[in-house]
Amino acid sequence: FISTGGLPPASRVGELVAEAHSRFRTVELGANSTVYPALTRVPSELFGICVAGTDGEIFSVGDADREFAVMSVSKPFIFALICDLIGPTGARERLGVNATGYPFNSLTGIERSQNGRTNPMVNAGAIATTSLAPGDSMDDKWTFISEGLSRFAGRGLAVNEDVYASASETNFRNRSIAWMLASRDSIYCDPAEAVDLYTCQCALNVSARDLAVMGATLAHGGVNPITREQVVRPETCHYTLAVMLTGGLYETSGDWLYEIGLPGKSGIGGGIVTVSPGKSGLGVFSPPLDDEGNSVRGQLVAQFLSQRLGLDLLVSSPSG
Amino acid sequence: FISTGGLPPASRVGELVAEAHSRFRTVELGANSTVYPALTRVPSELFGICVAGTDGEIFSVGDADREFAVMSVSKPFIFALICDLIGPTGARERLGVNATGYPFNSLTGIERSQNGRTNPMVNAGAIATTSLAPGDSMDDKWTFISEGLSRFAGRGLAVNEDVYASASETNFRNRSIAWMLASRDSIYCDPAEAVDLYTCQCALNVSARDLAVMGATLAHGGVNPITREQVVRPETCHYTLAVMLTGGLYETSGDWLYEIGLPGKSGIGGGIVTVSPGKSGLGVFSPPLDDEGNSVRGQLVAQFLSQRLGLDLLVSSPSG
Amino acid sequence: FISTGGLPPASRVGELVAEAHSRFRTVELGANSTVYPALTRVPSELFGICVAGTDGEIFSVGDADREFAVMSVSKPFIFALICDLIGPTGARERLGVNATGYPFNSLTGIERSQNGRTNPMVNAGAIATTSLAPGDSMDDKWTFISEGLSRFAGRGLAVNEDVYASASETNFRNRSIAWMLASRDSIYCDPAEAVDLYTCQCALNVSARDLAVMGATLAHGGVNPITREQVVRPETCHYTLAVMLTGGLYETSGDWLYEIGLPGKSGIGGGIVTVSPGKSGLGVFSPPLDDEGNSVRGQLVAQFLSQRLGLDLLVSSPSG
Amino acid sequence: FISTGGLPPASRVGELVAEAHSRFRTVELGANSTVYPALTRVPSELFGICVAGTDGEIFSVGDADREFAVMSVSKPFIFALICDLIGPTGARERLGVNATGYPFNSLTGIERSQNGRTNPMVNAGAIATTSLAPGDSMDDKWTFISEGLSRFAGRGLAVNEDVYASASETNFRNRSIAWMLASRDSIYCDPAEAVDLYTCQCALNVSARDLAVMGATLAHGGVNPITREQVVRPETCHYTLAVMLTGGLYETSGDWLYEIGLPGKSGIGGGIVTVSPGKSGLGVFSPPLDDEGNSVRGQLVAQFLSQRLGLDLLVSSPSG
Repeated sequence: FISTGGLPPASRVGELVAEAHSRFRTVELGANSTVYPALTRVPSELFGICVAGTDGEIFSVGDADREFAVMSVSKPFIFALICDLIGPTGARERLGVNATGYPFNSLTGIERSQNGRTNPMVNAGAIATTSLAPGDSMDDKWTFISEGLSRFAGRGLAVNEDVYASASETNFRNRSIAWMLASRDSIYCDPAEAVDLYTCQCALNVSARDLAVMGATLAHGGVNPITREQVVRPETCHYTLAVMLTGGLYETSGDWLYEIGLPGKSGIGGGIVTVSPGKSGLGVFSPPLDDEGNSVRGQLVAQFLSQRLGLDLLVSSPSG
Repeated sequence: FISTGGLPPASRVGELVAEAHSRFRTVELGANSTVYPALTRVPSELFGICVAGTDGEIFSVGDADREFAVMSVSKPFIFALICDLIGPTGARERLGVNATGYPFNSLTGIERSQNGRTNPMVNAGAIATTSLAPGDSMDDKWTFISEGLSRFAGRGLAVNEDVYASASETNFRNRSIAWMLASRDSIYCDPAEAVDLYTCQCALNVSARDLAVMGATLAHGGVNPITREQVVRPETCHYTLAVMLTGGLYETSGDWLYEIGLPGKSGIGGGIVTVSPGKSGLGVFSPPLDDEGNSVRGQLVAQFLSQRLGLDLLVSSPSG
Repeated sequence: FISTGGLPPASRVGELVAEAHSRFRTVELGANSTVYPALTRVPSELFGICVAGTDGEIFSVGDADREFAVMSVSKPFIFALICDLIGPTGARERLGVNATGYPFNSLTGIERSQNGRTNPMVNAGAIATTSLAPGDSMDDKWTFISEGLSRFAGRGLAVNEDVYASASETNFRNRSIAWMLASRDSIYCDPAEAVDLYTCQCALNVSARDLAVMGATLAHGGVNPITREQVVRPETCHYTLAVMLTGGLYETSGDWLYEIGLPGKSGIGGGIVTVSPGKSGLGVFSPPLDDEGNSVRGQLVAQFLSQRLGLDLLVSSPSG
Repeated sequence: FISTGGLPPASRVGELVAEAHSRFRTVELGANSTVYPALTRVPSELFGICVAGTDGEIFSVGDADREFAVMSVSKPFIFALICDLIGPTGARERLGVNATGYPFNSLTGIERSQNGRTNPMVNAGAIATTSLAPGDSMDDKWTFISEGLSRFAGRGLAVNEDVYASASETNFRNRSIAWMLASRDSIYCDPAEAVDLYTCQCALNVSARDLAVMGATLAHGGVNPITREQVVRPETCHYTLAVMLTGGLYETSGDWLYEIGLPGKSGIGGGIVTVSPGKSGLGVFSPPLDDEGNSVRGQLVAQFLSQRLGLDLLVSSPSG
């Protein structure tokens, strides 16, 4: 009962990935995030692309192995781990799945919500998701989170200590969100601990290749196409991609879908992931962001490859 | 460059459509819309389902030919006609494509918007869409609208005069929306005329079969699979399905996607349409609505058939 | 059961009014309203001040007899007429009396309100107030409004036809407000007629002297201190001044009160009125407005005279 | 330059205070706050009224010396202390003075504000006010706060440890507010410390008599009429009463003003204070609250005495 279809032949995928890199590496719009000094210092010209097929083939170009802070791109993967653990009904009840219509860090979105639930792709829902990590201690919870994300990537991910330190000192808005959630019974461990775990999770280092493999895992019924490990159940992928479509690019998720037709998630570290169910994951790394906080080149690559690789979920042809 | 895959064998589709009908016809939750007397009077037990394949095969059961007011289900099809006419860039600039986070008839959503644009699936964006109908006179504009929707259905659609009369007398909120759009330069003909055209458009009668064929047209690169007429361009289907995914069920669009994984649109007349690109359109008619104003049985059928017919866009399997 | 106290001796009042004029006539900040061409064309240097004591003494300087469009300064006086007619309980039930926290022309303020009520000092509440004008025809209603306002001024007020014509062509936002009120059962005659009456009411010409007398009437238990006519009941003055304090300067009413300590109301025609219960009314006319749409010099004069004439309602002295 | 006028003769005041008590002690509407167990346990029938004249005369009846938690009634007095310290311009810049249109504990009100400022009468502005308490240590800051409030009361106020303990464990919303203020540079000491100081300040015990004297101090140019101490400057009283008028009863401040015509402030401990500049302060204590969280009998007494004692600031009489 699944969609069929696959990627074009490997040689064609390789050509298109290379073409995307050469076509967009000259685009010099946008600027690194200034939220944390450690993000501002990353060389802006770094640019890596990787496509991971569900058959395990990897197509990468440029700085695809360069590590950077995963930031918000961690959100869908943590959601997948928690949804897999407590089930899609419990996850929706505790976290919400609709668009808020408000920015990623909004308190109004929580306040307007009937029950304090938002969406796992915005900070409120993401912190609530992280607060559901099982474990009797912070260490246990962190092990769940870091090992879970590492299983998606197929290798052990480590924390970027610079980013973690900066973020810990300045995450006032996330603390406000966590206490607001607490006042509405929508956070599921100590709020200060939830913020700390979330800050740490966002500071994990990944590469474009990691993001591609992580995305490909969601495109492959929850099985990592490299390690062959079943990271989450097949149905969990459906639910994760649903919340990504709804809120992956926050209040411009509609624009993203209009342009690209695939689930995606971006982070202010310059990473972006998109998922083509049954086919592939795409990871891009390029630090300069647009005004909405999304990697400029990352979006261009995603749009180009969505069209050229035939990934767009919404396209049809009368001859097809 | 398109997704491949198709429906199960015809006999299996027929069985599943019949099973959906027998399974859900005993569900007696919800109540007819009380917005207009003409909607309240429709027999609640009416229940029709139709699947139209992109190959032109029709699978229908129950009251699939019974006519009812299309209401908001007209929105994606009018958007498709206008988007086809002025192009996706122009359509986005004039109408907006992101989720508003506010109810379908909200003025706040317009007021909060930077430029008065919303989404073609909520009333504000839908009235603005209708206001873009070409023509020097109301008659010309109406001809564009009614003939365009009729081309999607593959037959001439007629106005339900009762619904039109009731709606014309009580559409205060839509008039408020239209004048608000005017104050923000976001409506493109006389506001009172736009509301009248929109009211009339929503009062067109369709059947579940019509909705299935209309949806199948968007699933088939814009070609009506029965009449073989090219109603809109292939790429227009992508853009139309994108706005449906973002806002087709208003502020519960995330819930719909979480459950069903397909673009859909419902109306208070009891109709609901879902689209499976490359495969089929589904139309359901059952008047009783839930508290959010969506057909109870319509949603159950959509979820059942999305799973059993393998339509869900977000599912994948490690076995390929 | 009333506050006592009065103005300083007449000669001192005269001196202070003259001083206010000479002190602020060199202030050249702000700009005429650009909302209507007829407002933009008014010579910016016009500057009139008038204080009317409750004993009937008039202190005026500069262009205090020059006529200009009353615009929003009509709101408290129409409210007084309607409140006097239907009583304070009925007026509050139908119109609301709390601050909305939203701009004067906001639809969100109406949408957020539990029952569609706002405040008679913002457009929504003001249009609703006007819609309560008694009469079987537009002519009758208009007679009630124009004669009522004229009784406050103590002379017959006439419509500024230029302003009325401009406003009638461009009052889209007010039409949106009126239909929104209709959708929430918060307007009390035909919405289009209410907007027309309101537009006409705002286009009435007054002078700074008129405003002073109108204000003095509210300061004098509802008796016009010049004509000695009882325009409204004494208790109506209390209720009118209460809504002025709450919303007279829209979302900056708190700033006004912080600076001036008196009920006031401004209009984009450049007029401003303040009321000192038991003592006097103050009218100022100076077209250049600040970014919030309030007469720059008008506010300066009000603050200066509130202090120097001992009008501030919130001041006390341990020696007093 | 101040308003004149005074209270009726002492015997008449005494009669009216006694009449208010006997008239309203049979009103049994409302219910004790359930926010903290310590508030719920207070006997509901307790009922005290006190009027303190600016001449130092005290008129009290019932449980006017019974202590209860001051809660939000502390807000105007802390504002007065801080405004006196840093001046009205600095206070407005750092705290804001306009109505937010949102509930007392809203985060949306902060988020919508251009610069994170709200009003010292709602929790956000009140916590920000408290954060401006001078001192190098928590002890120093607390000394400033507790001694300042004690000077208003004319006696040393002590903390209700039960209320403080309950509140400290459950003040999640205030912590959210404090961190939100921090993210917008609108809090002026460590956010956690500000919340703790604020929680402690709200847990101070006062009596109806204390509130009357505290109010009378604001009515008497800042001089405590009993101790004759100058607690704050005369002009500080004006600014404090201005913010009380604007926000003292949160989003129903307009209703309060419509009914009573005086600055007031209520708390969920059942206390309410009103101020008549130049004349008197009124303190009432009665635990049962209405749905908005204001003492039912407190409001009735305030309205009755405002009228009968001739305190209403907005009333005038043509014969006056």
